Amino acid sequence: MTTILRGNIIHAPAFGTLETIPRGYLVLEDGIIQGVFPDLPERYGGCPVEDCGQALIMPSFADLHLHAPQYPMLGMGMDLPLLDWLDTYTFRTEARFEDTDYARRVYRQLARELIAWGTTRVAMFSSRHTDATLILMEELENAGVTGYVGKVNMDRSSGPAQEGTEESVRETLRWLENCHFAHIKPILTPRFTPSCSDGLLEALGKLAAERNLPVQSHLSENTGEITWVRELHPDCGQYWETYDKYGLWKPGTLMAHCVYSDRREQEAMAGSGVWAVHCAASNLNLCSGTAPVRELIARGVHVALGSDIAGGDQLAMSRAAVMAIRASKIRRMEAGGDFLTVPEAYYLGSTAGHLYFGGGAGFEIGHKLHAIVVDDSSLPEPARELTLAERFERSIYLMEKEHIRAVYSEGRLLPRPADGR
Amino acid sequence: MTTILRGNIIHAPAFGTLETIPRGYLVLEDGIIQGVFPDLPERYGGCPVEDCGQALIMPSFADLHLHAPQYPMLGMGMDLPLLDWLDTYTFRTEARFEDTDYARRVYRQLARELIAWGTTRVAMFSSRHTDATLILMEELENAGVTGYVGKVNMDRSSGPAQEGTEESVRETLRWLENCHFAHIKPILTPRFTPSCSDGLLEALGKLAAERNLPVQSHLSENTGEITWVRELHPDCGQYWETYDKYGLWKPGTLMAHCVYSDRREQEAMAGSGVWAVHCAASNLNLCSGTAPVRELIARGVHVALGSDIAGGDQLAMSRAAVMAIRASKIRRMEAGGDFLTVPEAYYLGSTAGHLYFGGGAGFEIGHKLHAIVVDDSSLPEPARELTLAERFERSIYLMEKEHIRAVYSEGRLLPRPADGR
Repeated sequence: MTTILRGNIIHAPAFGTLETIPRGYLVLEDGIIQGVFPDLPERYGGCPVEDCGQALIMPSFADLHLHAPQYPMLGMGMDLPLLDWLDTYTFRTEARFEDTDYARRVYRQLARELIAWGTTRVAMFSSRHTDATLILMEELENAGVTGYVGKVNMDRSSGPAQEGTEESVRETLRWLENCHFAHIKPILTPRFTPSCSDGLLEALGKLAAERNLPVQSHLSENTGEITWVRELHPDCGQYWETYDKYGLWKPGTLMAHCVYSDRREQEAMAGSGVWAVHCAASNLNLCSGTAPVRELIARGVHVALGSDIAGGDQLAMSRAAVMAIRASKIRRMEAGGDFLTVPEAYYLGSTAGHLYFGGGAGFEIGHKLHAIVVDDSSLPEPARELTLAERFERSIYLMEKEHIRAVYSEGRLLPRPADGR
Repeated sequence: MTTILRGNIIHAPAFGTLETIPRGYLVLEDGIIQGVFPDLPERYGGCPVEDCGQALIMPSFADLHLHAPQYPMLGMGMDLPLLDWLDTYTFRTEARFEDTDYARRVYRQLARELIAWGTTRVAMFSSRHTDATLILMEELENAGVTGYVGKVNMDRSSGPAQEGTEESVRETLRWLENCHFAHIKPILTPRFTPSCSDGLLEALGKLAAERNLPVQSHLSENTGEITWVRELHPDCGQYWETYDKYGLWKPGTLMAHCVYSDRREQEAMAGSGVWAVHCAASNLNLCSGTAPVRELIARGVHVALGSDIAGGDQLAMSRAAVMAIRASKIRRMEAGGDFLTVPEAYYLGSTAGHLYFGGGAGFEIGHKLHAIVVDDSSLPEPARELTLAERFERSIYLMEKEHIRAVYSEGRLLPRPADGR
């Protein structure tokens, strides 16, 4: 089936590159991109055209680090130090997901909100609860969100929701047996080194190898954590080596934060194909710092963005992109260097994430469409006609849910969900 | 006429103090606050009660620094250095307000959006155009926004919209003659020292004294500007003295930014009753720095918040408060000290601004009601029942226009405007 979308087409096929095709045509066969054309090729002359008018058609967003069971505490506890925040909010909130009815309600709302904000691919932490994790995967799948979800493993220093080591491994196997979703796949998720015993890390590393499963965790988020990891693993020179020691440091491993990753750690990432997920809002909210994004990219590390709710306070990846720009400006003020431009931040929040999951670089031929249609007509009347690049820029800064008129995921137009629960 | 509102009442009567009255009563006579009560006093027993259910009733926001004619460029040019940003966007956009039809359309939308976001008091820069400034005042008045608006004076280094010195004075007089609005009053507005000749500053200083008019301008926003001011006024030891020299530095003078105000400049502010307006988003967007908010407050300077659109990219003062918190966390990471808590930032973005205009400290008896009613029921279902302080905190972080169910200004409930133009 041929589908043709017409509108102002904008994408970022490479870091720092923004391509704009005014009133162009995006041609799909069964949801797979056949090309982007300024004029419609003759061979498609007989096909109906879905005309989006003056709206912007852009690749959707990808959120490569967020904690689903922290959604209920979004925007709370931000005045607390990290450890109090974990004790007062995080562990207690996550423990609630023992209750599968509660999980169903919260995860249904989360999945709908992700789509409403134009996020169609995620790499997500669940809680330790197998059943709630399966519910989360089902709700994401039903809403049209694709990607990876991980049952969290944590058998140490993790508050009321902590598991036993054997229980953690057994539940992980039970979870994996029940992952039968078309577009949401499992990812192994040791919470972070301090919350996993050596035995658990070892078992997860074996599982990752045997079943060829991807891995996600946290790395070098703040200085206290790094000291703690050093105490726990005196044989490891650096934090990343605690993952490497157990076979969890491998191509496609996602490491959130990397705020304090120095040259050696960055080179270890580049050398192993480990990805860094930059979570600027969370790093500022929790006073962690600002990650060396340009350095990571210059050293050949793949970088994508994460909302990191609920350390981050906003689910919208357009806002995560703006916050990445802000964090880069803070680094510039402290130490010089270039900040991230809007097209660069958008690349990290969209293209990079899609590439992680095997998607295309922008609207690349042969890939299923992941896109949003942005109607910016209610934004302030400009002083002169704007270029598409300018409309793109202000849309990234000003986009509210109401401006996202349509969302495509895996080649199909999603039904616009009702807001709220 | 007696009006009684019932709901979850929250206000910040002092810096750092948050008072919450669950399901309390706010009693008004002709829009003037008679008191806040946990239980309704017997004398009001016969009066009808407007029940807001579980919604939060909070004082509205006050925006003490924003540029109305920059609204059309919101969220644009953020990748440009300050001078290019001024030349490419600011001066050209402001020059468009020669066209009164355009001004009417843009200012009507701006006024409605301010109310939709719960901002009921402003101190605002217009452009140099007298007619557009009067249109702005009329649109604000009609929408229910109160406060001060200034026709901008600029006869030097100000691009295509620059005025002659005599023209600037003459037009200021014509503007003042035509300011006949109940709730929007004039404020003298020399753009900033570099864009005003000595003659113009002198004339404005005289006018301020003769007619007892308040003054607003910019101070110590970035280091380049400070150097420039020193070159222009070699007789002045510090930037603030260029305003003082011409009688513009006086009680109630509003100075936006104060990022680089040192101890001496801060003491000059405190000593003269000059207010600092903190514009955190703008200071980060333009790589200016972070203002010493706690230092200013500790030295006795009155501080309020400004959105500073379009250096700032968000009109919502809830977001300006969140950005003030972020900026304070950046300062903390660099130099230690405490960050701003949510109640503190809300005080600066609400109470402080109301006090500037002679309003009350929170819901203070004897003052006309300025309030918003926030319906947070569509926010994520929490893991347990939240305290009002927690609901307040996440509302500040997560508030979207759709959550602001009603807005009161000068004691009256405003009609909910249709969004957009």
